[in-house]
Amino acid sequence: MLSVLKRVPRASVAARAAARSYATEHNPPTRFESASVWQNEPSQPNLVTDSVPGPRSSELSKEIADFQDPRTHVVVADYAKSRGNYLVDADGNEMLDVFAQIASIAIGYNNPELLALAKTDEFAIAAMNRPALGSFPSNEWSETIHKGLLSVAPKGTPHLFTQMCGSCANEGALKAAFMAYRARQRGEQGIKDFTSEEARLSAFVYIDVLSDNSLDMQMSSCMKNASPGSPDLVAMSFKSAFHGRLFGSLSLTRSKAIHKLDIPAFDWPAISWPTMKYPLDEYASENAEAEARTIALVEEMIIAQKKKGKDVAALIVEPIQSEGGDNHASPSFFKALRTVTREHGVFMIVDEVQTGVGATGAFWAHDKWKLDHPPDFVTFSKKMQAAGFYHAEGTRASLPYRNYNTWMGDPMRALQAREMIGFIKAHGLVAHTAAIGDELYSSLTDLSKRYSGQIHNLRGKDCGTFIAWDAASAEQRDKFVAEMRKVGVVMGGCGDKAVRLRPMLVFGDKQKDVLLEKMEGVFKDMS
Amino acid sequence: MLSVLKRVPRASVAARAAARSYATEHNPPTRFESASVWQNEPSQPNLVTDSVPGPRSSELSKEIADFQDPRTHVVVADYAKSRGNYLVDADGNEMLDVFAQIASIAIGYNNPELLALAKTDEFAIAAMNRPALGSFPSNEWSETIHKGLLSVAPKGTPHLFTQMCGSCANEGALKAAFMAYRARQRGEQGIKDFTSEEARLSAFVYIDVLSDNSLDMQMSSCMKNASPGSPDLVAMSFKSAFHGRLFGSLSLTRSKAIHKLDIPAFDWPAISWPTMKYPLDEYASENAEAEARTIALVEEMIIAQKKKGKDVAALIVEPIQSEGGDNHASPSFFKALRTVTREHGVFMIVDEVQTGVGATGAFWAHDKWKLDHPPDFVTFSKKMQAAGFYHAEGTRASLPYRNYNTWMGDPMRALQAREMIGFIKAHGLVAHTAAIGDELYSSLTDLSKRYSGQIHNLRGKDCGTFIAWDAASAEQRDKFVAEMRKVGVVMGGCGDKAVRLRPMLVFGDKQKDVLLEKMEGVFKDMS
Repeated sequence: MLSVLKRVPRASVAARAAARSYATEHNPPTRFESASVWQNEPSQPNLVTDSVPGPRSSELSKEIADFQDPRTHVVVADYAKSRGNYLVDADGNEMLDVFAQIASIAIGYNNPELLALAKTDEFAIAAMNRPALGSFPSNEWSETIHKGLLSVAPKGTPHLFTQMCGSCANEGALKAAFMAYRARQRGEQGIKDFTSEEARLSAFVYIDVLSDNSLDMQMSSCMKNASPGSPDLVAMSFKSAFHGRLFGSLSLTRSKAIHKLDIPAFDWPAISWPTMKYPLDEYASENAEAEARTIALVEEMIIAQKKKGKDVAALIVEPIQSEGGDNHASPSFFKALRTVTREHGVFMIVDEVQTGVGATGAFWAHDKWKLDHPPDFVTFSKKMQAAGFYHAEGTRASLPYRNYNTWMGDPMRALQAREMIGFIKAHGLVAHTAAIGDELYSSLTDLSKRYSGQIHNLRGKDCGTFIAWDAASAEQRDKFVAEMRKVGVVMGGCGDKAVRLRPMLVFGDKQKDVLLEKMEGVFKDMS
Repeated sequence: MLSVLKRVPRASVAARAAARSYATEHNPPTRFESASVWQNEPSQPNLVTDSVPGPRSSELSKEIADFQDPRTHVVVADYAKSRGNYLVDADGNEMLDVFAQIASIAIGYNNPELLALAKTDEFAIAAMNRPALGSFPSNEWSETIHKGLLSVAPKGTPHLFTQMCGSCANEGALKAAFMAYRARQRGEQGIKDFTSEEARLSAFVYIDVLSDNSLDMQMSSCMKNASPGSPDLVAMSFKSAFHGRLFGSLSLTRSKAIHKLDIPAFDWPAISWPTMKYPLDEYASENAEAEARTIALVEEMIIAQKKKGKDVAALIVEPIQSEGGDNHASPSFFKALRTVTREHGVFMIVDEVQTGVGATGAFWAHDKWKLDHPPDFVTFSKKMQAAGFYHAEGTRASLPYRNYNTWMGDPMRALQAREMIGFIKAHGLVAHTAAIGDELYSSLTDLSKRYSGQIHNLRGKDCGTFIAWDAASAEQRDKFVAEMRKVGVVMGGCGDKAVRLRPMLVFGDKQKDVLLEKMEGVFKDMS
């Protein structure tokens, strides 16, 4: 039996839904206390073994080693005992987790609302009867999506393609962008006739609906992976970007050699991220110059590629380069990017796999750019648990089965997303995270003055809890992360020598105080 | 409340586990009756609307059209009411489903054992606390895998990399193959030192462990997507193959232009599948010649690529080309493929995404080849619900984080796979499917004689229920599938003009009789 569940009194799903609806419409609190959800959440880390991982964790890690690579294991976790912001490991060590499964847990371990959802018939049926969603969607699909994922659709991108993971999401958006680019070149009519009886009847079997003679050569060449059917179009990304690890997304990723070495890649261009100085506002004019130079390079590259006959069909960008080192840029930079992509007919894909779902103090990090023209595609995964991309009008594939696969996402994860979005709205967790992030940033600024050798380039002001800094070196960063684990705090690095904070949206005052206290202790010892 | 659940008396999970264990060890029945699991499974299709899809299904399809492409919808389904071999749609039409979500439902809709699993704490916790599996696996992971996925590991491939979907599985195996190929070229030592304290301590932060000077140029070039770091290696597949729709897997896929058009592709070679005549045994010598020609072409291509400096690192092959038209080859062909790949140091990936998990009358279709040297990689997804690849000793990446991603599969789906594998073993469903498939094939042979204009090239003898045939034309095939739907049978096409049967493993005598009766009725009407 699940001890977490038993100790927490829970209202019915319906009662909680009603409360949520009230809170959403009226005045959601801007501060959230995780104790209101988990009465038994630890107030402090509690280590019961001499080292972490402890003996049980190490033993289980060795068992896994029989079949799977254990070298990346941090600890073997006991998810049944984990709760709220605290990860409990197989030895019973209770650790404050501000990495949250690489930024993928939104509303706490064993959130009672999610556990209650998991026990419903609705969830069981969705879990155990996964459909080929493009062909046999469920009678609840539309409502699930409207109440969940569509209720937070970014402005200007009301369409949705669901997928299985973040890399898949980026590649799906990229495929859609390539198809839309070629459709525009061909002068295709765009989307029409979605619901005709004929289309529906013929849709079940995979017929070659592209048998128009004018497309003959394109069709035959693509079967040979050759131009023009497999076009010489390229996708552009930024150096130090991370967009995933499948073959297309890995070609866009430029963060670390260890991700890319030995894997064939597309000859796609990349532009250096502007070299920013932090705090951004103290170096506003220098940063603006760096950004302007980058924008110029982007435009030059688009033009140069066109001259080579290798048009840039899409540009993909993270609002904050995360895995690559938490590299920021200003809203003006992104506005300029949107302008230059629009001027040259390049589709813009905003990769919100890590930045999305509230952690930056906005539901979508790109909300803060206040673009006049929204991006064409916005991708998501991680904290949303469901994955996929939102897209603009006119970017749906011209014919059925062009962007299609067996599962096309997982309805069970869409239910989870619906529940999480409800929880986030009901408890005002985006506003909460913006507020707690401001305080945390301010405290870290103080700390950086007292431990100036340890915290460099603090960044993430006005970005919720999406905060990072550089250590003096990679070694110092690794040591810091290891030392923090020894005092019961799970943290993550990024880039060459950065530490990134990725707490959950239920990270509150208490956890912030623990984090700062433990950090100060470690900094003292390391000084 | 879920009516299906209420009507079926269920033993406790533990009691059923005990019964299963007994049945597995002693004498599992070779025939399975779905009525023993679903007392309320329909015995016949029952259509309540004049056409399929009916009005409610069409209405829901239009709602979905607001945000997602509905042109590929067959029907909108009511999964709560579906049971066993019968899919129930939003209008209440009860249809025998021998397509099974594109071959992805193994043991029936709303299988009570799976629903019981879904209601356990174990499942709820796994579902709602999805880990970054490579870094924070759960204390139950090893046991779940040993009892489930590893208990059916193909011979010679005892290692496991879990992923999210079939395309991901193929790309993961392909990445592993490229890395292993380069490791061999470099003379790397292979896998060692999995559990050292140092490796574990440094593993948490993404450090660049590849900083050996001798690799400098490789590392810097791969960051530019350029050779030698992004190597000129290629992967080889067969024409008419289907291996997925992401950028790497789509470059291997050669089934239909509609899947590939407008998407940039790698310049990778493909060889024509041998042109086989059916029934295979009646044309044994001609088929053997066709296969020998193909093997010769494979070897020539491997040599030609090597001369161009573009070594073939991997060859990927489906045991039966499914989406491409249910194209078969003999065990001798695959033995020869294994020989030629071994002789030239080409890794062999067997794509069992569609053929795996029992439908061919063997747990893995390639079991029947009885290879002296097993394949290096075996990929799976679909009916396993969990996805990933098994792999041979020595093909684990040389360093941590090389083949890695945030989720690395979904423990919840591994639990489902464990439960399904238990059910399949307990009920002897592989032997059952072999037996029922033999009878079905025999009956279809009879039918093909009486309706010789409608059934051409019947294939799938001794392949369980993995049976297909050609219609006279694409139009006739489409018409047949549409007419079958009108009498309450959900079927799927493949290739240019084939019909493929993909019933579940719980497809038994009763369903076989219904299928044959309905087919005969439609053939009569179409004659």
